[in-house]
Amino acid sequence: MNLTRPVFVIDAKIAKANIEKMCIKSSSQGVRLRPHFKTHQNHEVGRWFREYGVTAITVSSIEMAEFFAADGWDDITVAFSVNINEIEKINKLAKTIKLNLLLEDLYVVTYLEEHLEAPVGVYIEIDTGYHRAGLDSKNFEEIGSLLKSITNSKKLECKGFLTFPGHTYTARSEKEIRSIHKAYMSEMTNLRQYFENQYKNLEISVGDTPSCTIVEDFSMVEEIRPGNFVYYDQMQLIIGSCVFSDVATIVACPVVAIHKERQEIIIFAGAVHFSKEQVSTEEKGAYYGDVVELTNNGWTSEKTGSYLSWMTQEHGVVKASKVFLEKVKIGEFIGIIPAHSCLTANLMKKETIIINK
Amino acid sequence: MNLTRPVFVIDAKIAKANIEKMCIKSSSQGVRLRPHFKTHQNHEVGRWFREYGVTAITVSSIEMAEFFAADGWDDITVAFSVNINEIEKINKLAKTIKLNLLLEDLYVVTYLEEHLEAPVGVYIEIDTGYHRAGLDSKNFEEIGSLLKSITNSKKLECKGFLTFPGHTYTARSEKEIRSIHKAYMSEMTNLRQYFENQYKNLEISVGDTPSCTIVEDFSMVEEIRPGNFVYYDQMQLIIGSCVFSDVATIVACPVVAIHKERQEIIIFAGAVHFSKEQVSTEEKGAYYGDVVELTNNGWTSEKTGSYLSWMTQEHGVVKASKVFLEKVKIGEFIGIIPAHSCLTANLMKKETIIINK
Repeated sequence: MNLTRPVFVIDAKIAKANIEKMCIKSSSQGVRLRPHFKTHQNHEVGRWFREYGVTAITVSSIEMAEFFAADGWDDITVAFSVNINEIEKINKLAKTIKLNLLLEDLYVVTYLEEHLEAPVGVYIEIDTGYHRAGLDSKNFEEIGSLLKSITNSKKLECKGFLTFPGHTYTARSEKEIRSIHKAYMSEMTNLRQYFENQYKNLEISVGDTPSCTIVEDFSMVEEIRPGNFVYYDQMQLIIGSCVFSDVATIVACPVVAIHKERQEIIIFAGAVHFSKEQVSTEEKGAYYGDVVELTNNGWTSEKTGSYLSWMTQEHGVVKASKVFLEKVKIGEFIGIIPAHSCLTANLMKKETIIINK
Repeated sequence: MNLTRPVFVIDAKIAKANIEKMCIKSSSQGVRLRPHFKTHQNHEVGRWFREYGVTAITVSSIEMAEFFAADGWDDITVAFSVNINEIEKINKLAKTIKLNLLLEDLYVVTYLEEHLEAPVGVYIEIDTGYHRAGLDSKNFEEIGSLLKSITNSKKLECKGFLTFPGHTYTARSEKEIRSIHKAYMSEMTNLRQYFENQYKNLEISVGDTPSCTIVEDFSMVEEIRPGNFVYYDQMQLIIGSCVFSDVATIVACPVVAIHKERQEIIIFAGAVHFSKEQVSTEEKGAYYGDVVELTNNGWTSEKTGSYLSWMTQEHGVVKASKVFLEKVKIGEFIGIIPAHSCLTANLMKKETIIINK
């Protein structure tokens, strides 16, 4: 790696192994894998999924749908409550690809029915405990009104119920992930059961990286939508949904100063490279990612006992172990596992290299 | 404003008033204002400073120096410890503009002396209590070695001492800002005094928005380098370095869902728009910015009693007052004061509009 500035490094071999594993899990159960492409936002990485048979994807904005439609993806769910201000772009997409949208309000159903120029599929967003967006899974009244209104519409095709159980991110063990998974699955299947006499073929779409990675059986749903698993990151390591050798990205950062008296290393890489997402452990408190050493074709399998403890706009401050502090030199590059690879990938779009292709 | 997606809105009238105030303060005292352009990273906003006589600027990366050199700025300090890996770009810049670099290690002095192809000015970075980068202001031994080595160099022109007293950001009142200011000023002037018999014309360069805004007298230094003051933000409001009417930017965000039962509004705007910098008050806990209502030519002078309490990649969750909750509608745009305008401006470079020019 011939580097001069902070660079987002993707190890293709690791990422492809992550993709393959998830594809085998879903296809062996007859469940559609509709991976969330907000994690990588990268055409080349997107094409790796095709090699394993993926044909349908999830994105989180209309802009991202346009970006991937331009690379030939023609079955896209925008897993984000419709922003009606973007109706022109929605119409353009709806005319050229199989587009699914997310709904949770009658007003939007009416708006779409009036303004859509081509049919779209819609999912009703259900809140199963994350409490970000969506209707409570027991709010049968509002969900029922939406179902009625959608099925009466000429332009909306009702696909079913979709949830993002992001509260698995609060888990810190496989056991906790399984317990949250069990709860949201039960809410979703109860919901379908409640309406299944009246409405046929309602799909269930779930998906978050922790439970899609850890739980074996997804045969009771039609679709899973994990995204982060392509890279994983420090947060997934702490949750316990992956191990170190599954992590497919680091940020390579130049060392610009060393403060032995404080056991700190200053790197050129900060909030404009990583974003400011934190992780936290009892030992380290809130921090931004562990430090690894770079090798000719990637990074070492051992961590360095050092971690990114603080950052400002372009500065990163690494708390270094004594051994690492003695070793490192100004001008060298060190690797940092990003706290949240999705946000870091977004910031580093133009500063990305792919190794071990 | 005809909006469809989240947009970073700059009120030119407010920003220019902020620039004018700082220019008057510095020029009336004969102090060079070398504003930090990392806040806006915008050619048009940069040109506003020229209208008030600014000719020298600060940036935090070589890339940013190139960006502003391309718009005619020819006196630029890169206020960031030299990344020696970028020597080629440094050489290109050094040949075409007056370039100042930041040093805190003898190794880098030697490296530059060997590899520079044109002269540059250098400041020694001093730590006056922020404890991010720089040498302790009382570390006379290392500072003395650096001074000697720099003055012996043929390619480096010793400009003096530079500090970023970022610990003013922990202040929560004018009194606290003044007290931190007094302490770092005393450290810097003592340092100069210590070396002034041996080294003539050592400049002092200081600069952070809280103290440069609040403190009246900077006549004991040669240069101030505030940056954030052009926009200010929620953090500066909480510190007490500005008032609401000084804030020159908001992010206009579309409302995509309303959850009356939770008193929450879901907006399309999250970490990829704002970054994840937080502010914190006793009343609200950690949050991301207050909500304002948009008008035809800006935003209302009254806040709404609502604030951005949570965000993920593209989702923002607003805790809304009862009054605001009754008023707002899906599809409308609301304004959010960014927690940290520098990071938000960086993310929203391509999604910026300037009003009230």
